[in-house]
Amino acid sequence: MVLVNGKAVQTLSVHDRGLLYGDGLFETLAVRGGRPLQWPRHLARLKRGCARLGIEAPDAEGLLEETLRVAAGARRAVVKIIVTRGAGARGYRPGAGPATRIVAAHPPPGHPPAYRRDGVAVRWCATRLGLNPALAGLKHLNRLEQVLARAEWDDPDIAEGLMQDPDGNVIEGTMTNLFAALGGELVTPDLSRCGVAGVMRERVLECAAALAVPCRIRVLAPAELETAREIFLCNSLIGIWSVRRLGERNVPRGPLAERLTAALAEEG
Amino acid sequence: MVLVNGKAVQTLSVHDRGLLYGDGLFETLAVRGGRPLQWPRHLARLKRGCARLGIEAPDAEGLLEETLRVAAGARRAVVKIIVTRGAGARGYRPGAGPATRIVAAHPPPGHPPAYRRDGVAVRWCATRLGLNPALAGLKHLNRLEQVLARAEWDDPDIAEGLMQDPDGNVIEGTMTNLFAALGGELVTPDLSRCGVAGVMRERVLECAAALAVPCRIRVLAPAELETAREIFLCNSLIGIWSVRRLGERNVPRGPLAERLTAALAEEG
Repeated sequence: MVLVNGKAVQTLSVHDRGLLYGDGLFETLAVRGGRPLQWPRHLARLKRGCARLGIEAPDAEGLLEETLRVAAGARRAVVKIIVTRGAGARGYRPGAGPATRIVAAHPPPGHPPAYRRDGVAVRWCATRLGLNPALAGLKHLNRLEQVLARAEWDDPDIAEGLMQDPDGNVIEGTMTNLFAALGGELVTPDLSRCGVAGVMRERVLECAAALAVPCRIRVLAPAELETAREIFLCNSLIGIWSVRRLGERNVPRGPLAERLTAALAEEG
Repeated sequence: MVLVNGKAVQTLSVHDRGLLYGDGLFETLAVRGGRPLQWPRHLARLKRGCARLGIEAPDAEGLLEETLRVAAGARRAVVKIIVTRGAGARGYRPGAGPATRIVAAHPPPGHPPAYRRDGVAVRWCATRLGLNPALAGLKHLNRLEQVLARAEWDDPDIAEGLMQDPDGNVIEGTMTNLFAALGGELVTPDLSRCGVAGVMRERVLECAAALAVPCRIRVLAPAELETAREIFLCNSLIGIWSVRRLGERNVPRGPLAERLTAALAEEG
């Protein structure tokens, strides 16, 4: 089911700025038993994104009502929320028109259960993430870099590709954030210049802090991953995936991914 | 009038990747007397863009037919063509689904005639263009940087804003390409790391060569514009605008903008 501005339709105006310029944001939430998980966090990130782009944030209560409506009856599903600046005047200049909101339910992603159980093989992507502090961290609709990166491989044994910034720093996977156990700390890349600050990344950081695991957000070089005692990926839909292979190299499995997965499961 | 895949409708599937990821390209053409100007160049750029993104290019003859259909009877108009990767499977990975094409006619932009006659005042934008060689030059649908840059001012006396790359090099205006007369040469910024390679930029370069004006595409520093004997902006809809003021500084008017405008007008 899809709701566009509250109406059960499957289409959008061709003049919507979401299409014309990618002028909007999205959230992807896991649904269990008809209930969207981590709703307050997703809502908060969406609101922060709207504030940064100057888009009117949707009414929180109405948005939750629509999310519950499209998710109703689904044992497991994904709800995708898109908020765009709407259909305004022509040209890049943002008009004052009302925002568009799209709330859609989808089946859960069909990743092999082995990814979660045995860990995943990942590769390096050649496509880099451009630097832009004005857009960094946001889950906005300008996603061509991820599309090009994901088009680089079709080997089903490779679950994810890692992306670097133009200086070669590790930033994230095409659809996941990355953590590495390095020198007694859990490190995740700094996203102040590019990347998407995931809701699950935020939860992992908080959860690690609660477990007294030292954590650091910092610039991360690819070479450091060769010495990592453990690497894992995360997002709201998959939870945590241990990395068992990066390129040609086997990565050791460590205890953190398991401990954090268990702790996150307790939170629900 | 709008045609979506040849049908006279105004809407698009909410599952189209043009909306979800900005996974597509566009062209904006001037129409005079029902005829799209510089059709072969726009078509060629669109095809090059499709090849680079791995999107199936629309059939050339059919696209021209649709362009003529939406422009029919218009003395002056703008036709915008959007080609997206279509509505495929979920996730960043590009599927094999058919591309979507949208052909829409709009009234011409309502810029004050004084812009063309007397030149324009421009400003520097704080929003930078991210570096990405994989996307550089393309007129793709990821345009949030331009939207944020254009949102920086609402003074109607400022016609355009200039954008820099993360290293501070001058790249272009939010909707125009830039040329500067420097040391006996006409210089336009190198767009191999970011920016949109405009059809009018290509025409200006060719036209200048035909007039035996020395031209160079190179990295351009903002400070160099302070010594420019002439600066002008261009795109397919506006033609050429001389810059008469850049920030707080008056820019001298030179003969090149006028000569090139006259030569381009002869070409039609």
